[in-house]
Amino acid sequence: MDVSPVSLVAEDIRSVEARMRALPVPAAAPVAATLERLLAAGGKRLRPALALLFGRMLRVPEEPLIHLAAAFEIVHTATLIHDDLVDQARIRRGIPAIHTEWPAATTVLVGDFLFAWAARLAAATGSIAVVQEFANALTVIVDGEIRELSVAEAGNGAAGYETRIRAKTAALFEAACRCPVLLTGDSAAAERAADYGSAFGMAFQIADDIMDFTADSASTGKPSGQDLARGLLTLPAIHYLASRPDDPDASALGAGNSDPDIRARLFEKIRVSDAIEQSRASARRHIGRAVESLCAFPRGAHRDALENLVNSIV
Amino acid sequence: MDVSPVSLVAEDIRSVEARMRALPVPAAAPVAATLERLLAAGGKRLRPALALLFGRMLRVPEEPLIHLAAAFEIVHTATLIHDDLVDQARIRRGIPAIHTEWPAATTVLVGDFLFAWAARLAAATGSIAVVQEFANALTVIVDGEIRELSVAEAGNGAAGYETRIRAKTAALFEAACRCPVLLTGDSAAAERAADYGSAFGMAFQIADDIMDFTADSASTGKPSGQDLARGLLTLPAIHYLASRPDDPDASALGAGNSDPDIRARLFEKIRVSDAIEQSRASARRHIGRAVESLCAFPRGAHRDALENLVNSIV
Repeated sequence: MDVSPVSLVAEDIRSVEARMRALPVPAAAPVAATLERLLAAGGKRLRPALALLFGRMLRVPEEPLIHLAAAFEIVHTATLIHDDLVDQARIRRGIPAIHTEWPAATTVLVGDFLFAWAARLAAATGSIAVVQEFANALTVIVDGEIRELSVAEAGNGAAGYETRIRAKTAALFEAACRCPVLLTGDSAAAERAADYGSAFGMAFQIADDIMDFTADSASTGKPSGQDLARGLLTLPAIHYLASRPDDPDASALGAGNSDPDIRARLFEKIRVSDAIEQSRASARRHIGRAVESLCAFPRGAHRDALENLVNSIV
Repeated sequence: MDVSPVSLVAEDIRSVEARMRALPVPAAAPVAATLERLLAAGGKRLRPALALLFGRMLRVPEEPLIHLAAAFEIVHTATLIHDDLVDQARIRRGIPAIHTEWPAATTVLVGDFLFAWAARLAAATGSIAVVQEFANALTVIVDGEIRELSVAEAGNGAAGYETRIRAKTAALFEAACRCPVLLTGDSAAAERAADYGSAFGMAFQIADDIMDFTADSASTGKPSGQDLARGLLTLPAIHYLASRPDDPDASALGAGNSDPDIRARLFEKIRVSDAIEQSRASARRHIGRAVESLCAFPRGAHRDALENLVNSIV
């Protein structure tokens, strides 16, 4: 059987995408075409898919559910636009990042516009609990990003890494799973959904960070190693550094030496080390936690899909 | 009598400022000190003052009212942070703008953090109507800013100017006046408060744009003329250009000539022309509209303060 776990909500995702094409200000900013292209370019639509699976599993009314799923994809896109500007990334979702086509000024404001639009959609659910959760998640995400800027070189171990990715990545997945359940009014169930979402997000980010060491990039055919190159210590690097206190490159990096040759050598050593497998084990631990939290929900196609989806991460 | 119209809510404003010092994430980003300094530096606190005057006039409960007033000041500060980055302004509220002390990346994220925090405070009122209004206003403001970037040189007349400042400035004043009244549940009164706020904001922005031609800057002792220098046509310039079709500098500017000498000559001509008085008359028209909309509210000290406040603009 090779059915994607999100196929259950494929039609809903099309509704979400239609809602995302309806920009809220008809006068439409000069950047409307750019924005529409970026929103249409897609990506995996994972956050809306999770919200939709929980919402459909619990028979949440369609209208607020679609608003909510769109809000999560739009806020995610807003953070990507500002992140790409911050990181000077050139390509996003296979098309040029907005800041490569527009001045930084416009790029900042386009991100702001999407934050505002996402807030409108969250408010359109009519649920104050949803809006509160949405705003809380956004605060945590941005706070995490600000802290990441300043600890990029710090490498404060696996615990620090988990704290960072919990804010930067898991908080939005957590909110995307909690909010649809809040619409049912069952706050205990909402917490179980949040547990799933948080664990999903942690596993997802760890897998992404492993990929930076192991996956071949489409353009170069080689793993990119971008994180280490820009001084960001992710879980594989952290595990490696902890287990090889006698590696002179590790010591040099730990002491704040930012020589690119040291980083390049470490990259090669890390990707063939057991730090990769250790990191996979961490991801699997989170996946186990996510699967466990699904026990609170009714058996059936939606729960199976949520289980398959999180199991497909690693 | 020389009592400031906002003295009625002076104590509430101190409560708002206390709330603004309580950053929502205790881990506190590395920028917390910078942010606290900017939030403390103040400015006129006009948006909270308006929200508080309407709220107190209609006996809105204190707790959500203070949340709301703080939300408006924080969202206003967020837009200033991003605007100063966009415009490369160096000084804000008498202290260095954030982007002069931190990388652009951090500045973008600090603005985002304030947007998120403001949304949290708006949601803390517990009113979905307030959150919807808040998110709508933010969408309109950012859309207006994006459009202003692209029409800076266009000069599409007084109507275009009014559309621009309605979005850029009046929308937030409008929301700051509408939201406290929404908390009473009286939506007809909320619309009258919104009329006041919108007219207040229009008059306020026109007065600000006149000041750019007439007020002496603290540092140079001369009017700054910054708007015209960067190609932004505000109401005095628009009135002047419309009434002097035969001025060769006006024609050159209208044809897109961006020679700084032309702008400098025009600046001197505009500031001694009757375009200034014409602009004041436009501001007074909005002030009249604001005063008129106050008739819907109970007579007393708060209504008097609102009337005095808008009358003090020009």
